[in-house]
Amino acid sequence: MSLIAETPEPPYYAVIFSSVRSEVGDGYAETAARMIELATQQPGFLGVESVREELGITISYWSDLESIRQWKTQAEHLEAQKMGREKWYTDYKTRIARVERDYEK
Amino acid sequence: MSLIAETPEPPYYAVIFSSVRSEVGDGYAETAARMIELATQQPGFLGVESVREELGITISYWSDLESIRQWKTQAEHLEAQKMGREKWYTDYKTRIARVERDYEK
Repeated sequence: MSLIAETPEPPYYAVIFSSVRSEVGDGYAETAARMIELATQQPGFLGVESVREELGITISYWSDLESIRQWKTQAEHLEAQKMGREKWYTDYKTRIARVERDYEK
Repeated sequence: MSLIAETPEPPYYAVIFSSVRSEVGDGYAETAARMIELATQQPGFLGVESVREELGITISYWSDLESIRQWKTQAEHLEAQKMGREKWYTDYKTRIARVERDYEK
């Protein structure tokens, strides 16, 4: 599997999640892996790219805004978001963007 | 300075550059740093976030598409893109996206 998501022709959507981790580790790695596994099973999911140093960036790609809304409100994901806010991240920002064009090597 | 870009209220634009490095190192780190320095001086530049493990993601944020077009065709940046294609990356993908909304911690 390529590290770079194999997305279809635009337009499609990107959820850009930029975050800085706290010192609190409890359950973080398991939940992060589980959320990626769960996202891939959602309707409209197109792919994901994720990297972390001190800053982490995870971009998930989606076919449409309704799929993103459903993912945002998925029960297990809501619980993970709550843990993220309260424990795992000192800072984060989520951006919802419409990919209008792309080009590759 | 926060690691997470302090962007204005949407809408604005994101250039998402996802890449996998080759083994070739010549000049890469210097040019990567120089490109970020240079981007910050361009009209319409709003911020940048960059992370690399095996996969690298650099997202630059811009006020409008015309600013992105100017940056893409800036002379020194064109030269860097050529080196990237020919030497530094085994794979990459660039996506131009319109940020429609965002929320933060």
